[in-house]
Amino acid sequence: MSDIRKDPVTGRWVIISGKRAARPGDFTRTRDLPKPNGRCPFCYGHEADTPPEILSYRENGNGHWNLRVVPNKFSALRVEGMLDREGEGLYDRMSGVGAHEVIIESPDHEMSLAGLPEKRVEDLFWAFRDRIVDLKRDSRLRYVLLFKNHGEEAGASLEHTHSQIIALPVVPIQVQEELEGAQRYYSFKERCVFCDIVRQESANDARVILETDQLLVISPYAPRFPFETWVLPRSHNSHFETAEPSLIQSLAWAMRAIIRKMEKVLEYPAYNFLIHTAPVQAPPLDHYHWHLEIIPRLARVAGFEWGAGFYVNPTPPEESAQFLRDSGL
Amino acid sequence: MSDIRKDPVTGRWVIISGKRAARPGDFTRTRDLPKPNGRCPFCYGHEADTPPEILSYRENGNGHWNLRVVPNKFSALRVEGMLDREGEGLYDRMSGVGAHEVIIESPDHEMSLAGLPEKRVEDLFWAFRDRIVDLKRDSRLRYVLLFKNHGEEAGASLEHTHSQIIALPVVPIQVQEELEGAQRYYSFKERCVFCDIVRQESANDARVILETDQLLVISPYAPRFPFETWVLPRSHNSHFETAEPSLIQSLAWAMRAIIRKMEKVLEYPAYNFLIHTAPVQAPPLDHYHWHLEIIPRLARVAGFEWGAGFYVNPTPPEESAQFLRDSGL
Repeated sequence: MSDIRKDPVTGRWVIISGKRAARPGDFTRTRDLPKPNGRCPFCYGHEADTPPEILSYRENGNGHWNLRVVPNKFSALRVEGMLDREGEGLYDRMSGVGAHEVIIESPDHEMSLAGLPEKRVEDLFWAFRDRIVDLKRDSRLRYVLLFKNHGEEAGASLEHTHSQIIALPVVPIQVQEELEGAQRYYSFKERCVFCDIVRQESANDARVILETDQLLVISPYAPRFPFETWVLPRSHNSHFETAEPSLIQSLAWAMRAIIRKMEKVLEYPAYNFLIHTAPVQAPPLDHYHWHLEIIPRLARVAGFEWGAGFYVNPTPPEESAQFLRDSGL
Repeated sequence: MSDIRKDPVTGRWVIISGKRAARPGDFTRTRDLPKPNGRCPFCYGHEADTPPEILSYRENGNGHWNLRVVPNKFSALRVEGMLDREGEGLYDRMSGVGAHEVIIESPDHEMSLAGLPEKRVEDLFWAFRDRIVDLKRDSRLRYVLLFKNHGEEAGASLEHTHSQIIALPVVPIQVQEELEGAQRYYSFKERCVFCDIVRQESANDARVILETDQLLVISPYAPRFPFETWVLPRSHNSHFETAEPSLIQSLAWAMRAIIRKMEKVLEYPAYNFLIHTAPVQAPPLDHYHWHLEIIPRLARVAGFEWGAGFYVNPTPPEESAQFLRDSGL
């Protein structure tokens, strides 16, 4: 089993997957990830190529699935086993307890998320919700990462459209920092910083890309990357999994719209999105507000990092918002 | 002039370089960085292709330079001008005051850092020191990033061997977090966490790659990436620029040795290194300890990030340390 280790300075947790690299030559091998070899394990009819299904959504009345959730065949985390925690002098570690699941968004290999009907995009967010509700019953699990890597430059290892779910026994450091930052703001002002962002951005259209009754889609004020985009619910709620059905519906519409706009303006970019939500075992939080962040991977425009978390972005968010706002769906 | 903007949730600062992207087509152009076009501006004899020299080291008695420091021709930061700070509702920004300099480590286009004689590697660290001492006299500047990107995959835009210096009017977020983490440890234990790491790693050779009287080179306990390597001075000192000459000499020897080992084991990888040092205007700090972190960019071994600062590393540090320790210089 793999090891989850903590950096003693920053508190950052890292999974050391512990697969033995036998000889130096191995360090130049390709990484051990599922490779299709001409046969895609996510396609309709190849269901036996994945580990047993955890969840599926099917058409009424027939057996055809529209969406399947399966364990990642090459997971570094296991739900089985004890969560051992131990010290090693000044260091801390625990066993690699957790889950890594894949949501196959369509039986069709050629389909993309934004090409699916709205109702089927909604299914992806329902699957995220259903899995988080199930996983949080395991009280060892503290955080559930919900994300999609689309395209090779964004880290997708298989072409067939899919998203991922990672359940962890620790809270990742950037989540922790976002929670602490939001808590500091709340302590100072007695208001949620995300609610304030929604108010200020709504009042001035410069960075708004699109809006619905329930959601605001913006280029954030200090984006790390060109065309970084945030989707913010208007109503305060810290936990994604308690979102109302009408908000999930609105989210599906907005995500399909914003990805289609990016495809037009940026010529079908690779992208990542990640749902930022509160730790699953936390009670409802007044200072935190779930939202979704999308980062297109634009190798040729290129924002870049100077180490140390300091980013340079050549595209002002007011300009990226305008280009996306002005493009059709 | 560019804008330095703060993310209101995390406190992360971002430079928005503000270059106008006129039309959507521009977003697929290559980024505006110096391109050699067959003529390298860093080569001997092409000195007029760079902005005027800030510093150079020359052979005794003749005019030939061994190392030059010049401003980055395409800097997003300017030393000239006022440091304006202003709010925009809940947001904060300041003008892009700072400096971006390039250290050309050799007049010879074909040379690599690890191929230079030891004395000339030492010159690089003296140049870092000399520039930080000069830049810190500008009290608007809070932090100086000292780093090298080697190879295209590591972000180097020119092939000719060089390092970089970025002086900023803010402290980057990861530096801030490292300082705060070290402060928390110190508050709890009344000891420097890096001094404790040096003690524990010296006592158990499992993660030690090489050591000198003055320095320890290790695979850290919780590395984000395969073959991530840290160089730690044995003596406590928070500020790189106050390092003793004998330590700089030892650092040059160790850096040359570790890069040569990586070149052997990892087949000439691209890499980044970054000196982690205290903010330049801070007094000597009991809780912080400067050091250097090297990250080889091993596309084919691949550690990866699951968003949110949570890394998976397939290579245990005990194994990477062994491979590097066992390889010759």
